Amino acid sequence: MIDVKELYNNLDNYMEKSITLQGWIRNHRKQKEFGFIDFSDGTCFKHVQLVYDNKLKDFDTIQKYHVGCAITVDGKVIKSVGSGQEFEIQVKNIKLEGDCPEDYPMQPKRHSNEFLREQAYLRPRVNLFQAVFRVRSSAADAIHKYFQDRGYVYFHAPLITASDCEGAGEMFQVTTLDLEKIAKSGKVDYSKDFFGKQSSLTVSGQLEAETFALAFKKTYTFGPTFRAENSNTKTHANEFWMIEPEIAFCDLEQDMDIMEDMLKYIVNYVLDKCKDEIEFFDKFVEKGLKDKLIKLVNSKFTRITHEEVITILKKANVKWEFVPEYGEDIAKEHEKYITEYFNGPVFITNWPKDIKAFYMKQNPDGKTVAAVDLEVPGAGELMGGSQREESYDKLINRMKELNMPLDGMEWYLNLRKYGGCYHSGFGMGFERLLIYLTGVENIRDVIPYPRTPGNCEY
Amino acid sequence: MIDVKELYNNLDNYMEKSITLQGWIRNHRKQKEFGFIDFSDGTCFKHVQLVYDNKLKDFDTIQKYHVGCAITVDGKVIKSVGSGQEFEIQVKNIKLEGDCPEDYPMQPKRHSNEFLREQAYLRPRVNLFQAVFRVRSSAADAIHKYFQDRGYVYFHAPLITASDCEGAGEMFQVTTLDLEKIAKSGKVDYSKDFFGKQSSLTVSGQLEAETFALAFKKTYTFGPTFRAENSNTKTHANEFWMIEPEIAFCDLEQDMDIMEDMLKYIVNYVLDKCKDEIEFFDKFVEKGLKDKLIKLVNSKFTRITHEEVITILKKANVKWEFVPEYGEDIAKEHEKYITEYFNGPVFITNWPKDIKAFYMKQNPDGKTVAAVDLEVPGAGELMGGSQREESYDKLINRMKELNMPLDGMEWYLNLRKYGGCYHSGFGMGFERLLIYLTGVENIRDVIPYPRTPGNCEY
Repeated sequence: MIDVKELYNNLDNYMEKSITLQGWIRNHRKQKEFGFIDFSDGTCFKHVQLVYDNKLKDFDTIQKYHVGCAITVDGKVIKSVGSGQEFEIQVKNIKLEGDCPEDYPMQPKRHSNEFLREQAYLRPRVNLFQAVFRVRSSAADAIHKYFQDRGYVYFHAPLITASDCEGAGEMFQVTTLDLEKIAKSGKVDYSKDFFGKQSSLTVSGQLEAETFALAFKKTYTFGPTFRAENSNTKTHANEFWMIEPEIAFCDLEQDMDIMEDMLKYIVNYVLDKCKDEIEFFDKFVEKGLKDKLIKLVNSKFTRITHEEVITILKKANVKWEFVPEYGEDIAKEHEKYITEYFNGPVFITNWPKDIKAFYMKQNPDGKTVAAVDLEVPGAGELMGGSQREESYDKLINRMKELNMPLDGMEWYLNLRKYGGCYHSGFGMGFERLLIYLTGVENIRDVIPYPRTPGNCEY
Repeated sequence: MIDVKELYNNLDNYMEKSITLQGWIRNHRKQKEFGFIDFSDGTCFKHVQLVYDNKLKDFDTIQKYHVGCAITVDGKVIKSVGSGQEFEIQVKNIKLEGDCPEDYPMQPKRHSNEFLREQAYLRPRVNLFQAVFRVRSSAADAIHKYFQDRGYVYFHAPLITASDCEGAGEMFQVTTLDLEKIAKSGKVDYSKDFFGKQSSLTVSGQLEAETFALAFKKTYTFGPTFRAENSNTKTHANEFWMIEPEIAFCDLEQDMDIMEDMLKYIVNYVLDKCKDEIEFFDKFVEKGLKDKLIKLVNSKFTRITHEEVITILKKANVKWEFVPEYGEDIAKEHEKYITEYFNGPVFITNWPKDIKAFYMKQNPDGKTVAAVDLEVPGAGELMGGSQREESYDKLINRMKELNMPLDGMEWYLNLRKYGGCYHSGFGMGFERLLIYLTGVENIRDVIPYPRTPGNCEY
């Protein structure tokens, strides 16, 4: 019993030998004297051709096996006489492991992504999603390898949280209170809720990750985060995975070094481990994808301030939909222009403090913070990071300015009192990376069972 | 700038050389002419001794640095004259990066685990939790390596779910409904909730993982799961991480092969990567821990049926608190007896169907299911698994017998119609594994920010 992946990896060893495979019929062409089965076991992107002839005593039975059937095949690996493949399996015996009716939805033809989304539990069986979810798995592997090999401690941030300083208004509430009883009694008593107070699903593990950075120097999270945003766009899901590294004794420049190095590592890893999948995306999903990825790996990322970006945008001979302004955020059209202007990825640093988060390090100019966004051609903003404010006084003053509740945030502030040091981190949405790696446009197609407004199937 | 880990790994290269380290003061002994700083940067369990003398112009300033301060040190690596360590750092310069007051709670003395739990954001800085959370990270690394190297596809199960077939009554509800408004209006309208219906946090990703096994042959989850169980015990947390592998064309025997192989791999990996941490646990947390782990790796796991176990228990010359009975569950005292009886880990198979889950494969005897629990000496039940029922008819009949709602479960049943094949899987609670690996007794001490009834800090 071997996997198809093993067969391809060591084909020479198996040539002219008898093997046993287990998997599924993806297509079945029947002729009077022969049959050809397109066979896959899901362990690699490539399929195998099974050939059987009417000398087999089960010939008639085998001819009745439909697309979708699970089978065990005994056969001999032989050089292929037909074109299109290097080898084929000369069938000696096929055992039916699981039948499949003729009205099986995953017939070997082109299905729309919308149709496949409705059949989310079957779509991992078709080529597109075989490729997408194998890349998802390999990219996750790359992320763990990158950080573990470099001595980062993997940190599991809490998912249920009672602090809401980042996500006010866009958080899912978590409760064991009986809503029907609340309706009847006319009272909400959070002291009776499971944790004795109101709690919700986290939007980020960063603040907690900082506690690990100040103990282990280098840490990263890789886990789910949640946002109850009511947006029905191609790039929004309400449950998604984030990577959030956090590093002590690290300034903004070093933070960018890590962001660049990590991204190149992941892309290289996927290019190497998922060759067939990338070829498939390049051919059928996004023409030029492979070149795009190779170019990224070989490019030097530009570093430029927000102010310089605005100056470039203002000088540009373009009629903007949104007029670029110093002190303001930039729009998608600006991001696109800037990455084209520099013909590669661009780190934009030192953003106006009023459009960035409270914990970012305040620059001496009093106007900007040591924040960075990475803009990547064809992906837009792929990561965001910052040096964190390490001054207790500056941090607490900023929180007061923003009318943030200090209650329950003492621990975060105290990190600045107890041997706090300069430190930085960043966040990357895993699905945003996958959209970039696969060329697939809709976030619903890179998550096995996506959660979006009104959608919570499976 | 190097990490302490790098220094220890390549000590010969650095001997008699000047280096720069960044980290924290863990202890500080001051003498008139000398000072000794116990220094750690969190990149490995080992500390470094810094020695400075009054020839330094900053001698008086340095003497004032408290425990907890963050510093940058320039110095020379020299052979240690004192005993207890191989080398020390002769300080040339120390720069204060972050001050720390004298009332810093993490003073270099023994703290109770209860006290440290109350200071959860600072406890990763003390030896015990440096060790625990580094083992947590390495064990997670081992799990990903094990499955990725063997071609398993990493599957991210959905966390928010509208199906509740496994966790009825013990699930956290997820909502964006305004509870105060519900109290006022006296009505609950789930059609207005975020997903248009009632939703909650998952208790297991297994059912969804089966859809991946039937597409990729081998898959595993490694993610958070939630249980709103109101238990305040040492082994219960309401948010914890689970590993759930699922394999197509795999029967119960092969399932046990994988369980055994995986567990030995993880233990070996941690023994190898976390030598200092294991020594520490062995010395200060659980005497004999290291031998226990080495013994596990070298043992052959026993395989025995539930019926045989009951027979052994009945024959035993023991006065049981709970009388063992055929057809019933076994108690902790029985688990302990059985692992001692066989002097090693024991797989108990073929459990009475009425005490096991609906999806487990029904054995021909009509009474038992192809389920397995792994009992490990000193850990109790560490994993549970089963072959899954692959017959559509048997599965749906069992669900009806148990009065389970079929609504919303069509997809799971359909997996049996569309090329379903014999398949198996298992689940392992990550924290239960960590308790076993570290000897730490309370689950609250192996999770960075544990969630238990009434507790949701950070």
